[in-house]
Amino acid sequence: MAEVVECVPNFSEGRNKEVVDKIADAISSAPGIKILDVEMDPDHNRSVVTFVGNKQSVQEGAFRGAQAAAELIDLTKHQGEHPRMGALDVLPFVPIQGVTMDDCVEVAHNVGARIAKHLKIPIYLYESAAKRSDRKNLENVRKGQFEGLRESIRTDDSKYPDFGPREVHPTAGAIAVGARMPLIAFNINLRSHDLAAAKDIAKKIRTSGGGLPHLKALGFDLKDKGMVQVSMNLTDYTVTPISKVFEEVGREAEARGIEVAEGEIIGLIPLDAICDITTRFLKLEQFTSGQILERRIWC
Amino acid sequence: MAEVVECVPNFSEGRNKEVVDKIADAISSAPGIKILDVEMDPDHNRSVVTFVGNKQSVQEGAFRGAQAAAELIDLTKHQGEHPRMGALDVLPFVPIQGVTMDDCVEVAHNVGARIAKHLKIPIYLYESAAKRSDRKNLENVRKGQFEGLRESIRTDDSKYPDFGPREVHPTAGAIAVGARMPLIAFNINLRSHDLAAAKDIAKKIRTSGGGLPHLKALGFDLKDKGMVQVSMNLTDYTVTPISKVFEEVGREAEARGIEVAEGEIIGLIPLDAICDITTRFLKLEQFTSGQILERRIWC
Repeated sequence: MAEVVECVPNFSEGRNKEVVDKIADAISSAPGIKILDVEMDPDHNRSVVTFVGNKQSVQEGAFRGAQAAAELIDLTKHQGEHPRMGALDVLPFVPIQGVTMDDCVEVAHNVGARIAKHLKIPIYLYESAAKRSDRKNLENVRKGQFEGLRESIRTDDSKYPDFGPREVHPTAGAIAVGARMPLIAFNINLRSHDLAAAKDIAKKIRTSGGGLPHLKALGFDLKDKGMVQVSMNLTDYTVTPISKVFEEVGREAEARGIEVAEGEIIGLIPLDAICDITTRFLKLEQFTSGQILERRIWC
Repeated sequence: MAEVVECVPNFSEGRNKEVVDKIADAISSAPGIKILDVEMDPDHNRSVVTFVGNKQSVQEGAFRGAQAAAELIDLTKHQGEHPRMGALDVLPFVPIQGVTMDDCVEVAHNVGARIAKHLKIPIYLYESAAKRSDRKNLENVRKGQFEGLRESIRTDDSKYPDFGPREVHPTAGAIAVGARMPLIAFNINLRSHDLAAAKDIAKKIRTSGGGLPHLKALGFDLKDKGMVQVSMNLTDYTVTPISKVFEEVGREAEARGIEVAEGEIIGLIPLDAICDITTRFLKLEQFTSGQILERRIWC
């Protein structure tokens, strides 16, 4: 089975398609890269490129993307709702197939060091690639954003970068480089107008509220649908599977006399997460993705 | 998306590995063929080879397999439990990706005509490839088997082959060539010793008993497990999805006070069938295999 690392860089440009296309072209100019998706978000003025390759390829693709972003994006002119600190803002590497998390940590460290050295951009390592426990959480790393970091990187020892200069790049800022599991964005819509209930369920099930591990959750109002939503990110579906999340939210909703109307998977989901659902639903004793016909064909 | 036809020839040799290997080698000598699986069954003295390719490739692979089987297997010496009428006994083509059932019917007709012409083996077209309604069902086609067909092909007009001579090949017999949907072999084990209940549920849910369309089902005793089993073949999961079968058997079991212990998927299952389960379990409004990360990578 070929080795596959996924890389999901977030760039601080979501309105100018020409710029985003040039960055994507720079990434795919590296040998062995396949771009799976490019999503531009004008409100957040931010783009997410999803690409895959082997360990060697993704390092080269990520470096070329960082280089293009530094040339094409001027963060001093950037405005958008999403917190950010760099032209290339976040650069996570994700193990998909035939590689371990340790491999992705190594890739993150290599790429971070190379960007710092050649592009003079400070690098903060986060999640599994973090060298300091206070940098595991991306929100901590990004606190203060570009504008705040310009000062604090020089004055605050907790902002000392893992690689590169102790000053932000004048136009490209700083970059958070990490290694993490695939994310699953999963929402459950409840047939109810009770926003407080959705928020309450979210709080109860999420990790920070003492609920399930590796789960972020928020409650939202869906005015158009006349429903409320528990919106979730599963940050490690191998520890907290999606079937368990669904059942847990279902239990909490039922306890409040609320019906689960529908689920929504936003974006991509790993095949193994689908296999887990199959195993759970059909009460299978043993089932692996190796039993899926197309997997035999493709792999 | 590349076009993929699956071909699942059944050969009347399940004990001599050298013979089966030679046949598999002959198949894979055709350009563009990928062999997914070779299973030998000594009891039935029968082997099943599963391979894929585009329309052109599978025609050539199937022909070479038929040729090798005719050279290597002597049906006059064959003994085994499974009904059979040819050295290459059954040759179904299955649409997997980027091809329609009509494409597979065309492939079946082409291959059947070529085998008949060059190898002098009579061909019976079955299921979606059938030209006569009484040949849709493979069991009808195979009735009488090799020994019976030697006589009836000459004397019985209902046994007139669709292609080829009106006499069986002296050692290779005759071949049923067809086009069909992917099969899913799915069992549900019930925590009960009540074999009559399992048989009753099977009878109620199967197509022949007026139950769900495209579903075959039998009840069995699982002495080793101390359970009974409803053993099923789903012959078109796009009409009768596996989730529906599971729920239906669950309802019937519950009505008899019996608990569903576990499900078993035997062999391979198409990705879309797994997506259906995911959609059903998580109450998704819309979900397609295009959202599966690995599919984006592989296709």
